[in-house]
Amino acid sequence: MSDIKLYTYWRSSASWRVRIALHHKGIDFESIFVNLLKGEQASSRCHPDEFKATNPTGLVPALVINGETILESPAILELLEELFPERPLLPKDPIARAKVRAIANIIGCDIHPVQNLRVLKYAGQDRMAEWAKHFIDLGFEGLEKVVKGTAGKYCFGDEVTLADVFLVPQIGNAVRWGVDMSKFPTLAAIGDRLGELDAFRKAHPTAQPDAAN
Amino acid sequence: MSDIKLYTYWRSSASWRVRIALHHKGIDFESIFVNLLKGEQASSRCHPDEFKATNPTGLVPALVINGETILESPAILELLEELFPERPLLPKDPIARAKVRAIANIIGCDIHPVQNLRVLKYAGQDRMAEWAKHFIDLGFEGLEKVVKGTAGKYCFGDEVTLADVFLVPQIGNAVRWGVDMSKFPTLAAIGDRLGELDAFRKAHPTAQPDAAN
Repeated sequence: MSDIKLYTYWRSSASWRVRIALHHKGIDFESIFVNLLKGEQASSRCHPDEFKATNPTGLVPALVINGETILESPAILELLEELFPERPLLPKDPIARAKVRAIANIIGCDIHPVQNLRVLKYAGQDRMAEWAKHFIDLGFEGLEKVVKGTAGKYCFGDEVTLADVFLVPQIGNAVRWGVDMSKFPTLAAIGDRLGELDAFRKAHPTAQPDAAN
Repeated sequence: MSDIKLYTYWRSSASWRVRIALHHKGIDFESIFVNLLKGEQASSRCHPDEFKATNPTGLVPALVINGETILESPAILELLEELFPERPLLPKDPIARAKVRAIANIIGCDIHPVQNLRVLKYAGQDRMAEWAKHFIDLGFEGLEKVVKGTAGKYCFGDEVTLADVFLVPQIGNAVRWGVDMSKFPTLAAIGDRLGELDAFRKAHPTAQPDAAN
């Protein structure tokens, strides 16, 4: 399985999600580091040639598997779940799967895209922090209530799921932008528990070889 | 199957996606109309009590099935695919599925959330049109290249997939905000072909009973 390559950047939340899933499932992979900060707001200008050729959006992560390049973290995560069903990140029951995916979507479609760096930059240097806090706060208000209804030890019951894979990087962003996590006790407690797990430690931005680039 | 209820709003792109899938699969459903314009930027304040009780995010669409409320259009669409496998919206091959999902994600995670009405309002009345055009243009530039590599008659080969379900409402937004679709000939041609299909006609905002509310 060493034919799996991940284009990743240590600070990219979406890359972080994929790293968690790869480590959780114990999948061997090679990292190719893409320094987003050297590029123009997530454009592909700074990327390795091979990456530019296969990834028209220029965004990380991208997963190369059996010579095929797969874009977008949610699609990559579903693919990993289908190809590597051991240590599943989705329950078996369809309604339960939908509830897990809904939590992942609240983060991946409602919260994270709006506080992504390229959006913050476009909002303006003077608005960045206030903007990020506003949308994370707004999103976490709803998310806290949703997760309160599904949580056990983690976001959905007592097993690690895709919901948790999305939650931890989003809490990372929240803390970075000064969101008061004590307003979201369910999310904060789950985040703390997940942070102790091996896969989450290995996937953490500060544990990456390209950290601080 | 008349125990399926969809909380929907005619202008909501995410509701539009779910309507397309329901019609495509020929699933009977009851619509419950939520007038987002009467509420505070996608808050739950204006919503029917039942909706408020079951949907902490206050966003549409929400699907009620067998008494369970499922939030978030991508999660709802995956659930419909799992419960109603006829007239599939995902191919069988995992890599092909991932490519279809990636196209859906480029729209659902990168483009649409950033030009959503609540974000445009927060950007400021004077920036709305320019903001929406900027991010749709940026997103469609990458998407046009991606879809050029996968398209047949539709976004991925010659069958309607989840990618098409996401594309049509996004083109609707693009046109609404004055994006020049002639810059994206592959996407525009696919959109035109999809627009002729029965499911897409039935799901169109202007065909909804709550249109113009």
